[in-house]
Amino acid sequence: MEAWKLISKKLEPFQYTVWTEFTPLAIKYNAVNLGQGFPAFKCPEFAKQALIDATNSDENQYSRSQGYLPLCQELARVYSSKYNREINPLTEIAVTIGASEGIMCALLGMVNPGDEVVMIEPCFDLYIPQTAIFGGIPVGVPLTPPTPGENQWTLDFDRLEAAFNERTRVFMINTPHNPIGKVFTRQEIEKIAEILEKWPNVCIISDEVYEYITYDGREHISIANFGNLWDRTVVFGSAGKIFSVTGWKTGWAIGGADAIKKITTAHMWNTYCSNTVAQGAIARMLRIADEPYIGFPNYYEWMKNEYTRKREILHNLLKNATKIGVDPIIPEGGYFMCARVNPSLIESSYLENTTYDFAFCRWMTEKLGVCAIPCSAFYLDHHKQDGENLVRFALCKDYKDYEAAEKLLS
Amino acid sequence: MEAWKLISKKLEPFQYTVWTEFTPLAIKYNAVNLGQGFPAFKCPEFAKQALIDATNSDENQYSRSQGYLPLCQELARVYSSKYNREINPLTEIAVTIGASEGIMCALLGMVNPGDEVVMIEPCFDLYIPQTAIFGGIPVGVPLTPPTPGENQWTLDFDRLEAAFNERTRVFMINTPHNPIGKVFTRQEIEKIAEILEKWPNVCIISDEVYEYITYDGREHISIANFGNLWDRTVVFGSAGKIFSVTGWKTGWAIGGADAIKKITTAHMWNTYCSNTVAQGAIARMLRIADEPYIGFPNYYEWMKNEYTRKREILHNLLKNATKIGVDPIIPEGGYFMCARVNPSLIESSYLENTTYDFAFCRWMTEKLGVCAIPCSAFYLDHHKQDGENLVRFALCKDYKDYEAAEKLLS
Ligand SMILES: Cc1ncc(COP(=O)(O)O)c(C=O)c1O
Ligand SMILES: Cc1ncc(COP(=O)(O)O)c(C=O)c1O
Repeated sequence: MEAWKLISKKLEPFQYTVWTEFTPLAIKYNAVNLGQGFPAFKCPEFAKQALIDATNSDENQYSRSQGYLPLCQELARVYSSKYNREINPLTEIAVTIGASEGIMCALLGMVNPGDEVVMIEPCFDLYIPQTAIFGGIPVGVPLTPPTPGENQWTLDFDRLEAAFNERTRVFMINTPHNPIGKVFTRQEIEKIAEILEKWPNVCIISDEVYEYITYDGREHISIANFGNLWDRTVVFGSAGKIFSVTGWKTGWAIGGADAIKKITTAHMWNTYCSNTVAQGAIARMLRIADEPYIGFPNYYEWMKNEYTRKREILHNLLKNATKIGVDPIIPEGGYFMCARVNPSLIESSYLENTTYDFAFCRWMTEKLGVCAIPCSAFYLDHHKQDGENLVRFALCKDYKDYEAAEKLLS
Repeated sequence: MEAWKLISKKLEPFQYTVWTEFTPLAIKYNAVNLGQGFPAFKCPEFAKQALIDATNSDENQYSRSQGYLPLCQELARVYSSKYNREINPLTEIAVTIGASEGIMCALLGMVNPGDEVVMIEPCFDLYIPQTAIFGGIPVGVPLTPPTPGENQWTLDFDRLEAAFNERTRVFMINTPHNPIGKVFTRQEIEKIAEILEKWPNVCIISDEVYEYITYDGREHISIANFGNLWDRTVVFGSAGKIFSVTGWKTGWAIGGADAIKKITTAHMWNTYCSNTVAQGAIARMLRIADEPYIGFPNYYEWMKNEYTRKREILHNLLKNATKIGVDPIIPEGGYFMCARVNPSLIESSYLENTTYDFAFCRWMTEKLGVCAIPCSAFYLDHHKQDGENLVRFALCKDYKDYEAAEKLLS
């Protein structure tokens, strides 16, 4: 082969993703796509109107690389009250191409080759390649799954503590969690923070893109607010997830100025700035979201209610889905519900040379017309067996999608 | 210092940019900003309308990672006719967060540590850090400046040829050129292509974001169309530059499927996808741009005419700017005009511990109220003397900006 055809060694191991397999597969088989985490319903009308207003106000040129000032100011307002400290819009906020680019830039700014990055598994599938691209070494700490009939995933703190050493440079946490829907409790975060206090050179990446989606009155807790961790923690948010506009690809990083500087430096060379019109629109939306919304005190409460309803619908659907016989685990927050698969129902041809979760998702998409995502994709190679009988369904679909799936699966 | 405060070694040398110095400086001194290359006029009405239409059509969720299909199809139509070959919208096009992220992803996909990347200097200031971040070694080949009174920068082909060796992995070219405005001729590109044919393992990055802006009837020539280079060449374009919507941050890479695959793989992990609404709008705009526009056969001709007029205005302005006494070099294409500075006019306090170009730009911004960009920023460290007496003015500003600058400088 001509040498120019070879992809770089950094990317070579990461040419496959579940998204590029399952989204096209769902389209090919005209399946109900309960796989990828994008809302299948329309975004709120006020979001569209805000984008139109920003367009008409001629907010169409490069913004400040660190973030369009009107958006940074609104974010400072919102998060200052959340974090109960005054956040500086000029130095403590970076706007990025979704949380995805934010985390990429954080790792670029934090990791030297050979540095270890401790992450809790399963984890959002970007973390591992993004770490490895910059020469970092992902160190996974798998959560303990709930016993059948239970719903709570638990963290083994001794195992977490044992993952740290002098080479650890970054710790990554995600709450509410993708894919398993865990919302870390105050007690859990407190214990994690205690471990981190012992490792003062470690930077902390806290992925909180589902911060507004918690169920049964659970509180979203951010590690940035514990002990002395603020300075070295960066919290990631996503307007895409909050406002159901994943295609706008606008997110943010919030944290101490030194930590944010790493991200703005990387972002400057990577993409230079985020879409200005979208930033202008989101600045407007953050104001509107606080106002009463369709019978709810604000937009966030309305959204939480919607996802709560969908969680119930999906849970009932999966419990009664006789054709697939899965065992759903009720999530505490976020966009997703995982379920244990029953390998005995999968057509045997699908089981060759693969794991149960992949076999199940291919079989269900092709033969039953419903798509989900295999969870071993969210584990490091040597821990993949932990996710092998788990699949992920999305809560961010339309009511009619769940009706359609119900007909197909029961 | 606490170790967590240290930025990664990859980014450590690249914490400074001219943009983060001069754009805020222009704002601070309320100066006419002829520095950064964003249009200071409004984008065309049809662009705004297209964005509004895409918003209202609910094109608000994640697109296909490689690019939103309607945009890829329009790009395939436009570039198939330019390149006189059928371009596959699914495999030969990648949509990225502007050309900036496109080139970043190309380098991530192509470069292994120690690989050499040959680039013609001066060069757009992203190329050097983007190369170095992935462990590549930038190898610069400086153009020979025109003698006073002349306008043509020339490439020493022997020097270019001598830059290649077994470690060369990538060659980068930019035409029409930022900052010097050179449009490489067919003969020049032919000679470059001959050299590249001798190095069959080298990937080619051709940055053509100013493809539509050439002056005096010059033709824009793409190296992708020479010899057998198509397969290993990726051409970068930018809707931001074409439609005066730099804030939309949407660009594309076009080339052979193997070359494009490197970019789509990197893009998937870096940002996942580009802004879908903007992509939907640009798909519409590429159709409208072919229609008659304000007395011109199409939008592109109108735009070329606008920049031609501004080139003349800026040229006259600089020739007659007695307070700065610069010697402008007439560009052949692109957004910019460079000028040689006259150090004798610069206030002496500005000349301490810096080069003429930086001293000039700081002095002119602070004392005369007009901002330009120092050109040594576009050279590698050991070639910076080549750019030390050169500064860059932008052609993409409003007529009233040039009027204001004229008053301030003469
Ligand atoms: C946990 C988590 N983090 C980050 C992201 C990426 O967010 P964005 O679309 O803002 O890049 C996602 C998207 O699915 C996610 O689930
Ligand atoms: C030569 C060149 N390439 C690439 C870019 C970046 O383009 P975009 O805004 O599409 O990222 C610029 C912007 O100034 C440029 O001048």
